[in-house]
Amino acid sequence: MTPFEQLMAYQRETAALEQVAGRLGWDQETVMPRGAADQRAEEMAAMEGVLHARRVDPRVGDWLAAIEETSLDDTGRAQLRHIRRDHERATRVPARLSAEIARVTSKAQRVWAEARAKDDVAHFLPILEQVVALKREEGAALAAEGDVYDAMLQDYEPGMTGAALDELFGALRPRLVALREAVLAKPEPQGVSGTFDEGVQMRLSRKIAQVFGYDMKRGRVDKAVHPFSSGSGLDVRITTRTAPTDPFNCIYSTIHEVGHASYEQNVDPAYLLTPLGQGVSMGVHESQSRIYENQLGRSRAFTDYLFREMRDAYGELGLVDPEAFYVAVNRVQKGYIRTEADEVQYNLHILLRTDIERRLISRELEVNDLEEAWNARFLADFGYPVDRPSNGVLQDVHWSVGLFGYFPTYTLGNVYAGCLNEALRRDVPDLDARLAEGETAPATDWLRENLQRHGGLREPRDTIAAACGAEPSEGPLLDYLEAKFGSIYGL
Amino acid sequence: MTPFEQLMAYQRETAALEQVAGRLGWDQETVMPRGAADQRAEEMAAMEGVLHARRVDPRVGDWLAAIEETSLDDTGRAQLRHIRRDHERATRVPARLSAEIARVTSKAQRVWAEARAKDDVAHFLPILEQVVALKREEGAALAAEGDVYDAMLQDYEPGMTGAALDELFGALRPRLVALREAVLAKPEPQGVSGTFDEGVQMRLSRKIAQVFGYDMKRGRVDKAVHPFSSGSGLDVRITTRTAPTDPFNCIYSTIHEVGHASYEQNVDPAYLLTPLGQGVSMGVHESQSRIYENQLGRSRAFTDYLFREMRDAYGELGLVDPEAFYVAVNRVQKGYIRTEADEVQYNLHILLRTDIERRLISRELEVNDLEEAWNARFLADFGYPVDRPSNGVLQDVHWSVGLFGYFPTYTLGNVYAGCLNEALRRDVPDLDARLAEGETAPATDWLRENLQRHGGLREPRDTIAAACGAEPSEGPLLDYLEAKFGSIYGL
Repeated sequence: MTPFEQLMAYQRETAALEQVAGRLGWDQETVMPRGAADQRAEEMAAMEGVLHARRVDPRVGDWLAAIEETSLDDTGRAQLRHIRRDHERATRVPARLSAEIARVTSKAQRVWAEARAKDDVAHFLPILEQVVALKREEGAALAAEGDVYDAMLQDYEPGMTGAALDELFGALRPRLVALREAVLAKPEPQGVSGTFDEGVQMRLSRKIAQVFGYDMKRGRVDKAVHPFSSGSGLDVRITTRTAPTDPFNCIYSTIHEVGHASYEQNVDPAYLLTPLGQGVSMGVHESQSRIYENQLGRSRAFTDYLFREMRDAYGELGLVDPEAFYVAVNRVQKGYIRTEADEVQYNLHILLRTDIERRLISRELEVNDLEEAWNARFLADFGYPVDRPSNGVLQDVHWSVGLFGYFPTYTLGNVYAGCLNEALRRDVPDLDARLAEGETAPATDWLRENLQRHGGLREPRDTIAAACGAEPSEGPLLDYLEAKFGSIYGL
Repeated sequence: MTPFEQLMAYQRETAALEQVAGRLGWDQETVMPRGAADQRAEEMAAMEGVLHARRVDPRVGDWLAAIEETSLDDTGRAQLRHIRRDHERATRVPARLSAEIARVTSKAQRVWAEARAKDDVAHFLPILEQVVALKREEGAALAAEGDVYDAMLQDYEPGMTGAALDELFGALRPRLVALREAVLAKPEPQGVSGTFDEGVQMRLSRKIAQVFGYDMKRGRVDKAVHPFSSGSGLDVRITTRTAPTDPFNCIYSTIHEVGHASYEQNVDPAYLLTPLGQGVSMGVHESQSRIYENQLGRSRAFTDYLFREMRDAYGELGLVDPEAFYVAVNRVQKGYIRTEADEVQYNLHILLRTDIERRLISRELEVNDLEEAWNARFLADFGYPVDRPSNGVLQDVHWSVGLFGYFPTYTLGNVYAGCLNEALRRDVPDLDARLAEGETAPATDWLRENLQRHGGLREPRDTIAAACGAEPSEGPLLDYLEAKFGSIYGL
């Protein structure tokens, strides 16, 4: 075997072990007996130990050094790019620091949950201080001479920089703030009413997942507290949730996760268990979940179909016709919580968090001033004050587990979804007529062929550019939002 | 850390990884999407690779050499005994041979399934020949100068020898053959009749599992094609099956697996994720599943309770009273299949297999003469000829996956269960009165205290001897069977 072949064989085993570790997470959230938590923590730590040892294995460095890159084709070079980046990342961070981050974030997650339950920011800040210090140290190790936050972004969105975020998010903010203000000045539309059998919600959910092309032979849909997608290749599972008075939560959580899962299921089978065999970045991943959920799932055309399906499943919804249904699934309401936000307001939540975490990492902002900064920015963008920490700075788990540089990928996903939607509608003129019949294949086939099947072949931004035929920008998303909500709210 | 502490820390990680690998098996049989099989095979192979590398890691040998055994207490010495045995086993078998066995048995399992489906022995024999040759080679490596079959037995029942089996099984055979003949000369009693809702079967199954002390906080009951128990410590899951016209299959499969699972759940928590933290051998494990299923679950006393429960659950069973119910759950019928056999005939199936596999391994019997040997022995012990290979030599998966030395542990389990039942009834005089009320605690507490909690502390035979206060022998099982079936059949 050539050094490249040896490296790829080694990598394939690593990828298989990563799938095993990921499935432990699925198991924990869906079927694990509740008394198994302590043992599970040891099992996960042991798997992490195995994976870390493989990532820093000196043989990987030897193989990388021995490979003649010019002898490889495009695919081979792309594989190598991923492996080199992961290996460098793993070897730059001292083992002592990685272990310390694992230890402190594990504790911080528990402390955060307690603090949120008690609405007690002071309880959380000391351990957050430790997390931030450790993550700054890790970021500095990764950045070498470069920018620390830029280095952090590479874990989630390779190629992205703080400067690029400044430009993009700077252009989003004023138009989003203005749109939000205009929409919320209008009377609130009617929502769904009634109670909805949770068994029926799950059945409908599985049907709609398949309507969006999710392959149940290589996946499954279960209930969990938080919806998520898990796994790559031939075993990609999703979870959803049910709420008795809100059937939209289950349906749209499912469609969102189907977007993520379809990306994983539709990667070229030739890339199975290789670095190219999965979604290329968090931002591109989120573009798939968002376009499935919003630009397709919440479109006027698709809601025609979904209205009929839900009427068939539940009888009465308290909504008279498809138009009222469309308005209800796109209703914009005041609120504090990111995960409950609508398309208009969601990105404002992200812009706030991105700005604050960048200042935390660069030491412009200290942990003790975090709550004040959060509340001031919220008031500025949303127009009313945060009422309590669990609705403000304590609402998200991310920082407690050390995820700095992750938040912006949500909005990048929305921006990318805007671009993809524009290109899709250009290429598929009869899309709405088909969506109105519950046929999503024109859209999902387009996404599979132009984006999903390539997996990690291209860098994230190039992945979007290649699918759209143009560099990604914020314009299409803003135009889409202003047109859609302008029409719904008569602006 | 001392060498012993280092070894134990390393071992704890290995044990956690073994739990992860085991849970992959559970997942595969219960919830895995059917299209995931190819990827799952790679995942399992990668986990096996990790575990094998850990078992032969030279550091284990270094630690073992550096430990002053005299400085350890009994528990420490028992831990060391297990670790040393596993390490020696792993290092004695060349990596090339292990890999070849894995490759060939994986293929042999598929070929066996095809051969069984087609009732075509000739299709299976060539690959079985390869499996036997490889297992002989492995056995010779393990045995060094000793007996090859004895060496194989150590994988499943440490301390057991072919000579001890000769004595035990030789004493069992004539009395079992005679009992079988006497029972089958009598008229066949009435069985259960009707169809039984499979959802109700699963609900009742979960209830009875808890009646036998299974802790659902650290376990769960699912449906699978084959009932099994999986995992140790804080996460011990069982599966069962349902058949619409045979509600006893589900109930007794469940009670059997609860016996296995209770052993794993009830080991002293101080042994969690150590070599002592699980059942000590296959034979002792089977003693727990058998005593739960048979000596307790099929006792006249417990069937009083179970009859009421099943009548409440299903209404009519086609059985007039608890006595008729007792006779039905203990009915002896002609048959070819080991897994469907009753208490009277089960061990004859095992004696047949043990005798044949010993002769195969010692080359007294060649693979080409296997079917003839099987059929002759079956006719001798059961009194009628095998009608087709899928009811004979092709019925069990074991040999195709290289399990030689495993079969005898089933009968050892029955023999041990006989001994434990005798001791239990001596120590708990009011046992039947309690069982008739559905109270199994007097029995399950006795088993937990006297046997289960010790896990791997003592060698298998010593585990039984310590619980019973006497060396194990075949007498109690034979006396129990002759008394029970003598009474049911009026012999």
